[in-house]
Amino acid sequence: MKKFDIYEDPHRRFNPLINEWVLVSPHRAKRPWQGQKETIADDSRPEYDPTCYLCPGNVRANGEVNPQYTSSFVFENDFAALKQEEIDFEESSETTFFKAKPERGISRVVCFSPKHNITLPEMDLATIEDIIRTWQKEYTELGKVDYINYVQIFENKGSVMGCSNPHPHGQIWAQSSLPTQIEKTHNSLKAYYDKNGSNLLLDYLKKELEAKERIIIENDHFVALVPFWAIWPFETMIVCKRHVTNIADFNAEEVAEYALILKQLTAKYDNLFETSFPYSSGIHQAPTDGQAHPEWLFHMHFYPPLLRSASVKKFMVGYEMMGESQRDITAEKSAQMLRDLSDVHYKTK
Amino acid sequence: MKKFDIYEDPHRRFNPLINEWVLVSPHRAKRPWQGQKETIADDSRPEYDPTCYLCPGNVRANGEVNPQYTSSFVFENDFAALKQEEIDFEESSETTFFKAKPERGISRVVCFSPKHNITLPEMDLATIEDIIRTWQKEYTELGKVDYINYVQIFENKGSVMGCSNPHPHGQIWAQSSLPTQIEKTHNSLKAYYDKNGSNLLLDYLKKELEAKERIIIENDHFVALVPFWAIWPFETMIVCKRHVTNIADFNAEEVAEYALILKQLTAKYDNLFETSFPYSSGIHQAPTDGQAHPEWLFHMHFYPPLLRSASVKKFMVGYEMMGESQRDITAEKSAQMLRDLSDVHYKTK
Ligand SMILES: O=P(O)(O)O[C@H]1O[C@H](CO)[C@@H](O)[C@H](O)[C@H]1O
Ligand SMILES: O=P(O)(O)O[C@H]1O[C@H](CO)[C@@H](O)[C@H](O)[C@H]1O
Repeated sequence: MKKFDIYEDPHRRFNPLINEWVLVSPHRAKRPWQGQKETIADDSRPEYDPTCYLCPGNVRANGEVNPQYTSSFVFENDFAALKQEEIDFEESSETTFFKAKPERGISRVVCFSPKHNITLPEMDLATIEDIIRTWQKEYTELGKVDYINYVQIFENKGSVMGCSNPHPHGQIWAQSSLPTQIEKTHNSLKAYYDKNGSNLLLDYLKKELEAKERIIIENDHFVALVPFWAIWPFETMIVCKRHVTNIADFNAEEVAEYALILKQLTAKYDNLFETSFPYSSGIHQAPTDGQAHPEWLFHMHFYPPLLRSASVKKFMVGYEMMGESQRDITAEKSAQMLRDLSDVHYKTK
Repeated sequence: MKKFDIYEDPHRRFNPLINEWVLVSPHRAKRPWQGQKETIADDSRPEYDPTCYLCPGNVRANGEVNPQYTSSFVFENDFAALKQEEIDFEESSETTFFKAKPERGISRVVCFSPKHNITLPEMDLATIEDIIRTWQKEYTELGKVDYINYVQIFENKGSVMGCSNPHPHGQIWAQSSLPTQIEKTHNSLKAYYDKNGSNLLLDYLKKELEAKERIIIENDHFVALVPFWAIWPFETMIVCKRHVTNIADFNAEEVAEYALILKQLTAKYDNLFETSFPYSSGIHQAPTDGQAHPEWLFHMHFYPPLLRSASVKKFMVGYEMMGESQRDITAEKSAQMLRDLSDVHYKTK
C-alpha cells in the first residue's frame, strides 16, 4: 500500500482556530481551466478622481463633503449594515426555529490615503504607519463604547472582492455580539488556554518557525506565513511574536515593523501575477468586553481568491458550500512561491 | 425606545442546522451599487456543440469518447479532487497544529441531458425524473462502497458559480469522512432528535407551513421555502413532507412531485431577473455508514448569488469572511417575491 505523502495525496487538514477541516487535492493543480475569467480593473487611475466619493473635497452619497485630508481619514458608513439605535426587545416564545435578536453597532470607512491611485504595497512606510495608528485609535475608541464588544477591521481589495470603489480604503464594523467566526475562534483559543495555560497561536508560531516550511517573511516582531490549514490558494496570516492581544498595545517599534511586513507581503502578492492582487483582509483580536483576554493573540488574515493567474480565481462553490472548503495547491507550495518572490513592488523596479 | 421590528431593524438570526448566526440589515437594501457587474453568459447556444467535452459523441480531456447518450449520463471526473486508492497512514505525533489525514473518495459528473443548450427549468418533467432516478442510483451504488460514508450530490450553475462548461450537468463527490458542513448538520439533527425524540426538519417544516410567510411552493410531497436563517439573498430549500432520510427512498409518486417542484422553483429563479439564474445547489441527506438515521431528513439547498439584477450579485467578502454572513433583503421579502412569480419559464410564455 502506498505510504501517505502530504504533498501528493488527497487529504484533509484540521484548522484548530475554528475547529473545521479543509480538503486538499495536491494532484489536482493540473486541471485545465475553461471557465469564467476575471477582468482585473485597469489600474491606471488618476491621483484625484472628481467622481470618486472617497477623494478629498468630494461630495458623498449623503451630501457631506470630505475634508481636504492628507493622511488617513475616517467617517461613518453612509450605508451601514448596523445602527447605533437601542432597540427594545422581548425574546419570542418560539426560540428553536425562529430565534432572532436585534444587533447594535457602528460602521466606519477608513480611507488609507488621499491618493486615488495607489494601494498598500505602493505606499511609503510613513503612510502605512499612519493607517495602523488610525486602526489603533478606532479599536480603542469604539471598544470603549459600552455596548460594543467586538471591533472588526477589514479591507476588501479589488472589484472581484465586492469592492465598489478602487480608492484605497478599508472598513470597521463594531458591534455588540461576537460575530460567528470570532466566537468560534474565541472558543478554541479559550479551550486551549484553559487546558494548557499557554496561548494557542504563540505555541503554533513557535512550531512554524521551527518547521520553516510555511514562513514567508519574518522580522523582529512579526511573521507572515501560510497557515497549515489555509483554504484560499494564497491565504496568509500575519502574527505578532510578543504576546499582544490587540492592535492598541503595539509600541512604536512594533507599529513600524507591522507597516514593513504589510508592505512587503502585499508587494509579494502584486508581484505573484504582476497585477493589483485582490483580497479580503481582516484583523482578529481580543473582544472589547472589558475583560483581560490572555487566550487571544493579534493576527491578520488575508483571503485572496486568485489561483493560477491574474484572471483565474478559485471558486468556493457547490462542494465547498455544501460540503467543505477545498484547495488544490498545498500550503507549503504557496508559501514557497510567495517566499521566493521579491518584496519590492514590480512597478517600482 | 423603539420596539424591535424584524422587517426593519438590524438583527441576527440563528441557523439551528449548523449552529451559526447571520446578520440581517433590512434597511440596507437601498444601498446604491457602483461595483463589479457580472456578465451573464449569453445563453443562445447550439443544441450540440462540437467543442464541448460533455456533448454526446465528443472526446473528453482524458481521450475517452462520450457515448451517444439520450437521457442522463454519468462518468468518473477526469480531474477528481478525491482518489479511490487506499493510502497507508500513521498519525503523526504533532496532532494539535499539523493534524492531517488521507481522504478516499470517488467523484463523478452527471450530465443532465444530451442537449447542450437547456437547463433544468426548460427540461420536460420526464427528463428531470430521469435525473432524479440517476441520483437515486448513484446514492445507492456509491453508498454501498465500504469506505464511502457520505455522498454529496451538487450542481454549480453559471460561470459566476465556477461552472466551467454550460452543458447542463452536476457532480457527485463521495468520500469516507463526513464533510465539515454535513458533520455540523448531523450533530445538530442528532442532538435535537436525542432531546426531543422527533426530527428537527419535520418539526421546522410544520412551523413554516403554519407561518406561511416563507413558503414559495407546496405540493403533496414537497415544500420549497426560504429558510428563516437564509444567508444568500434568494437562498431556498426543498424539503420533503414524509420522513424520508435519503433520496433512494422516494417512491415513484414522490419522484414525480420532486421533479415538478424542481422545475417550478428553477423557473421562478429564471423569471426573477429574466436570465439564466446562477446558483450552487446540493442535496443534504443521511450518511451511508450503514446505520439508520432517523434524525436526518432529505433536503436540497439552493445558494444563488444574485441580489438585485442579472448583473449585481451579493459578495460574501471582508466582513462576511472575517465576521459573519450578512444579508440585506429579509427572508420574508425574498420568499414573497419568488412566490408571486409565475412558475412558467419566461422563455416559453
Ligand atoms: O469541478 P469543476 O466544475 O471544474 O469546478 C468547480 O466546482 C468545484 C466543486 O464545487 C470547485 O472545487 C471548483 O473550484 C469549481 O470551479
Ligand atoms: O461596504 P461595501 O464595500 O459597499 O460592500 C462590500 O463589503 C461588505 C462587507 O464585507 C459586503 O457586505 C458587501 O457585500 C460588499 O459588496
